[in-house]
Amino acid sequence: MRQLFAILVFAALTAHAMDAGEPLRGYTVEASATEAQWERKFREMPDPERLRRTMERLAARPHNAGSPYDKDNAEWLLAQLKSYGLEAQIEQFDALVPTPKLRLLELNGPAKYTAKLEEPTLAVDPTSGQKQEQLPTYNAYSHDGDVTAPLVYVNYGAPEDYEQLERLGVSVRGAIVIARYGKTWRGIKPKVAADHGAVGCIIYSDPRDDGYYDGGQYPEGGMRPAEGVQRGSVMDMPIYPGDPQTPGEGAVPGAKLIPLDQVKVITRIPVLPISYTDAKPFLEALQGPVAPENWRGALPFTYRVGPSAVTAHLAVQSNWDRKPLYDVIARIPGTRHPDQWVIRGNHHDAWVNGADDPVAGTSPELEEARALGQLLQQGWRPARTIVYCFWDGEEFGLLGSTEWAEAHAEELRRHAVAYINSDGNERGYLQAEGSHSLENFVNGVAKDIIDPETNMSVWERLRLVRLSKAAPGKRAELRSRPDLRIGALGSGSDYTVFIDHLGVPSVDIGYGGEDKGTQYHSIYDDIYFYEHFEDTTFVYGRALAQTAGTMAMRLADADILPMQFTDLAETVRGYVTEVKTLADSEREAAMERNTEISEGVYRALYDPKKKMVPPQPEPVPPYLNFAPLDQASADLTQAAAEYEAAYGKWSGNAPTGLNAKLMQTGEALTDPQGLPSRPWYENLIYAPGFYTGYEVKTLPGVREAIEQKQWTTANTEIERTAAALEREVDLLHSATLLLQK
Amino acid sequence: MRQLFAILVFAALTAHAMDAGEPLRGYTVEASATEAQWERKFREMPDPERLRRTMERLAARPHNAGSPYDKDNAEWLLAQLKSYGLEAQIEQFDALVPTPKLRLLELNGPAKYTAKLEEPTLAVDPTSGQKQEQLPTYNAYSHDGDVTAPLVYVNYGAPEDYEQLERLGVSVRGAIVIARYGKTWRGIKPKVAADHGAVGCIIYSDPRDDGYYDGGQYPEGGMRPAEGVQRGSVMDMPIYPGDPQTPGEGAVPGAKLIPLDQVKVITRIPVLPISYTDAKPFLEALQGPVAPENWRGALPFTYRVGPSAVTAHLAVQSNWDRKPLYDVIARIPGTRHPDQWVIRGNHHDAWVNGADDPVAGTSPELEEARALGQLLQQGWRPARTIVYCFWDGEEFGLLGSTEWAEAHAEELRRHAVAYINSDGNERGYLQAEGSHSLENFVNGVAKDIIDPETNMSVWERLRLVRLSKAAPGKRAELRSRPDLRIGALGSGSDYTVFIDHLGVPSVDIGYGGEDKGTQYHSIYDDIYFYEHFEDTTFVYGRALAQTAGTMAMRLADADILPMQFTDLAETVRGYVTEVKTLADSEREAAMERNTEISEGVYRALYDPKKKMVPPQPEPVPPYLNFAPLDQASADLTQAAAEYEAAYGKWSGNAPTGLNAKLMQTGEALTDPQGLPSRPWYENLIYAPGFYTGYEVKTLPGVREAIEQKQWTTANTEIERTAAALEREVDLLHSATLLLQK
Repeated sequence: MRQLFAILVFAALTAHAMDAGEPLRGYTVEASATEAQWERKFREMPDPERLRRTMERLAARPHNAGSPYDKDNAEWLLAQLKSYGLEAQIEQFDALVPTPKLRLLELNGPAKYTAKLEEPTLAVDPTSGQKQEQLPTYNAYSHDGDVTAPLVYVNYGAPEDYEQLERLGVSVRGAIVIARYGKTWRGIKPKVAADHGAVGCIIYSDPRDDGYYDGGQYPEGGMRPAEGVQRGSVMDMPIYPGDPQTPGEGAVPGAKLIPLDQVKVITRIPVLPISYTDAKPFLEALQGPVAPENWRGALPFTYRVGPSAVTAHLAVQSNWDRKPLYDVIARIPGTRHPDQWVIRGNHHDAWVNGADDPVAGTSPELEEARALGQLLQQGWRPARTIVYCFWDGEEFGLLGSTEWAEAHAEELRRHAVAYINSDGNERGYLQAEGSHSLENFVNGVAKDIIDPETNMSVWERLRLVRLSKAAPGKRAELRSRPDLRIGALGSGSDYTVFIDHLGVPSVDIGYGGEDKGTQYHSIYDDIYFYEHFEDTTFVYGRALAQTAGTMAMRLADADILPMQFTDLAETVRGYVTEVKTLADSEREAAMERNTEISEGVYRALYDPKKKMVPPQPEPVPPYLNFAPLDQASADLTQAAAEYEAAYGKWSGNAPTGLNAKLMQTGEALTDPQGLPSRPWYENLIYAPGFYTGYEVKTLPGVREAIEQKQWTTANTEIERTAAALEREVDLLHSATLLLQK
Repeated sequence: MRQLFAILVFAALTAHAMDAGEPLRGYTVEASATEAQWERKFREMPDPERLRRTMERLAARPHNAGSPYDKDNAEWLLAQLKSYGLEAQIEQFDALVPTPKLRLLELNGPAKYTAKLEEPTLAVDPTSGQKQEQLPTYNAYSHDGDVTAPLVYVNYGAPEDYEQLERLGVSVRGAIVIARYGKTWRGIKPKVAADHGAVGCIIYSDPRDDGYYDGGQYPEGGMRPAEGVQRGSVMDMPIYPGDPQTPGEGAVPGAKLIPLDQVKVITRIPVLPISYTDAKPFLEALQGPVAPENWRGALPFTYRVGPSAVTAHLAVQSNWDRKPLYDVIARIPGTRHPDQWVIRGNHHDAWVNGADDPVAGTSPELEEARALGQLLQQGWRPARTIVYCFWDGEEFGLLGSTEWAEAHAEELRRHAVAYINSDGNERGYLQAEGSHSLENFVNGVAKDIIDPETNMSVWERLRLVRLSKAAPGKRAELRSRPDLRIGALGSGSDYTVFIDHLGVPSVDIGYGGEDKGTQYHSIYDDIYFYEHFEDTTFVYGRALAQTAGTMAMRLADADILPMQFTDLAETVRGYVTEVKTLADSEREAAMERNTEISEGVYRALYDPKKKMVPPQPEPVPPYLNFAPLDQASADLTQAAAEYEAAYGKWSGNAPTGLNAKLMQTGEALTDPQGLPSRPWYENLIYAPGFYTGYEVKTLPGVREAIEQKQWTTANTEIERTAAALEREVDLLHSATLLLQK
């Protein structure tokens, strides 16, 4: 039998070839050539050895916001920036920064256990023993409280986990819940627990999600060890981030403070994070039904839901001090458009030593600033103003960036072009999320960055890696779509105030995906760990500096801002389809469930040896009027195409007023009323989920109203969201006319 | 907003109402009424208390084939059957029944460990201490050998696991593999390991698959405990089951024996089963890459693939004795059609005490025989001969049933109507698999059995439970198809020789699915375990007796045998679609892989810290000629519909010769040449997979040729399988003509 080797022709490949002949988007042919030269010079400058030395300096000691070494780092960063010849300053704010006063967790009963709540010093790891300066393991912004109650295990503590508990006939009312880290952001866990009547919340790191399941434990391997603990804030940031006492206002000296007892973003119940070593006795005390399969971790016993026969005792108290924050801000004034600001940021504060989070991102940012300083000495001058920000207090609740942006809100609304964020950085593939008007721009930059391990562009590597993981139905797009898709931004880093509150187009970038281990928010996220298990040669730190710095330069120098709207329109069209599908599937699910109840499915599932609470029939969701959203999405598609056609014919100078229009395309998607029940979040396209915390909800007003079965709100939000999109359409029409003049 | 409660109309329900007015299939109206009366009487007779007492007798002591209590049980069963007034006898065969002589497993190196290879006595469990009579933990038909080599972990030891190992750059050549129980049948593990050059094989029970992951460990809960071991045969039964020295021939006294060293079904490397307690040190000694995610179990460490730095030492020797088997056979002679035999069987031998496996099935079978004896006393006489078989030596390799059926092959080809099998039995839902000409018949019986927990029919309960688990796309069928689908038979119990070797239409039934725990093939599968954690009130034992006994009676008394062929035709059509899809997806997968290699996907995945062996381009599978199979499937669809239409018009007496034709419809699907490389397996529709062991491969010649990339064979097998289907078509044409006369 004839055996054929497929003859492989890659027509698609040509679509991905670097368009060497094409000028950079937004640049004339001549300007593009000049820009490319400066960018190439820039990308040769970031130095892995300098990145290593900067990490060794910044991560040498614990430097949480409010600590002495945090201030020391800020001053050192300032001095460095100045030494590069940049104009720089520290902007100081004050914010509520709680630190632990009392932490107690005990298991009562015959096998009495008192949790250690302590990450031990490791002999091989020199900074792990800096006990005097380490913040103990705790969750910042936990309610002060002292409770004794039986335990119930709630899996990741997401709303759907409580639905499952209800089916199992287990209530958390009056109980202390034990939740594992993962899936939802940690602050969601005590929030949803309190919603269901729990009186306390313990959060632990299961080795299934963050431990030996995926590899060797630190210090033999890179995974979280048995007594490692994830600190972290549990502030209810989906309501608003930043200083809890000054929502929407910069926490400058003299700012009016909400009294502590009226602050809505502090948890309603005490919360404490623990290691799996501390969690084991509590989990083993649980009785009741065996946990559903997707609730089970990697500890060697049967996971049960509870409740426990014995009680647990949890006591938490904080020092509720206001502390100074030191944002370090450098500016490179623009020549042609000094009032158009390209903003770049990464935080400098850490939970402890923070080698990965944030120093692996802070060091490249500093290296970018150094390189730009060198370019200035060589004669380069950016057309727009570039602002380099080193934020403080990110870990507590995006404090430094939020207070700065709130304090400068009016200026930013007028002047901000885009915000480029990074945070920790690791080894592997480009990870980029952001505003979809910048999707094409991000792709363009990614094609110019060389991956240090494969020597292909980071864009091509990412495309091929995605291809290797893609479902068969997704491969054609990866082979033909000119731009790789970027994800939407939720929350979890300093871009939040820019994109979600002010509407400034934002991107968040980093590298990672090759190493599984992390010591996230632990004393072990330090230099020894990073130099053994992460980007050990700092070549991905260099790649990050190259990527972010190229972005800043290319945005700053463009004749026409390189926003592109066909990607945005296509993405929004996808989101509209998603929310319509969601509404349909919610309706179909309710009908199916009601049908199954009537048919006797739950009678058939009756098992006399198990407790099961069958669901009750529920109202079938009504049809919603999606017409305004469909119309707006279609209008946006057309307006984006028209702008693109007009841009395609452009040559010569940028039409007067065009960039000003483009600078409004971010804010156009916001609404000053904000989202239902959280007015600080003004962006109607992107927001962190009210019940996911970090994970994005796109078209959030519409999507969350459907998820929460608020049908009247859903219809209102469809109209508000459609109106925002129509504002974008109007701007694009104006921009197109300017280009056609 | 108006909230609608769906108004639920269940048109579909009428389709499932028990057709009280319709006569039983194959019966005239009058005969159906009479039959229904007798069946109702029958179903009142099985008694849970008697089931309990029978279990207490049969499982009182270890009774593996060849043991004293095995013989004792056979004699007791014989006496019981005779006491019911039945004609009964023991038929004795001799077969190769190896027992352990030497078992040794050590981990060498600094942390020297010698495996205990022993299931401890439990104080609460009275029979767990019968050490004198318990077979030690071992795998029967393991090669005798003594090897010392490094270890490699091979997950479930399936062929695809070795493909993954190849990608990771790890070879098992010269190594001892450690595999976990599950997925593939245990005998596949040493077979595939030997194919890849391994020199030894350890099989352990991971708590992820069979232990604390799913619930409390015995004796607190029903799951396998830390030192529990699954014994079991590793005879290469996908080649042939039964006595290894007399393939295809009954092992009667004087039968010619293949010399031991020429027997192909003994493993080529030594094999030993162990508990997870014994497995831990060996697994922890593994180095090398972290195991892929779906390879990881529930033990509390990082699963690695290996190899180990230290070696393991494995030594196994057996006593290679031939031992007597005692099949207990009872006959109820038929009045009208004494030469048409309805055969019912369950084995009586166990690995140790075997309360669940097999006594929970043996006891109901005995209770059926008692009830039929009572019916005979009340005047009932079956039209056909009913044969009740209590098989010996099933655990070693289906020895008793295979030797009996081989010894009686010629009679069975002429006389067998159908074979009804059961084995262990538990609590829960009806589980039925079998020949699809009996699918409608199985459904009919299931509608007449009342589920003891819900009081709905076991058919309705099964339908609703399937509905609760169904993918959305499968619900409509469950709501409208008159018959619930039954699965196809692979292997793993005594139906194998009937359906796979002789083509006798067969069904295998049992109850289960509500309790997760099992002590399968362990000393703990005993009365204490069963009465605490399985069908504790024996009501599902009664349901099994009611189901199997009703089947035997209904088959025995029918005027026209109740085979129905539209279900068969529809099922075969589905199989044809599956193999065509398989061929397409193999071709597409090869093309995609070749494309990705050329595109550089594997270069993009390169990670300097990990060893990865990219796949090589491979020939793209050719298109196969499926036309004969499509044609035969279409012909069968039409012939089945015509037979069904003719049957629908039937009334009065059964046409002469019709049942004889129907009795050939099983054998028509066989081919005396058997399957490629395993001629004992003559059924071209159903066979256990060559590389799955228990799990069925339907259209096995075609499907396995495609899976094994044997394209010439695939085309030949398409033709042979189509020819078998066309023989069925011819029979149905003849049968239809007889009905139309």
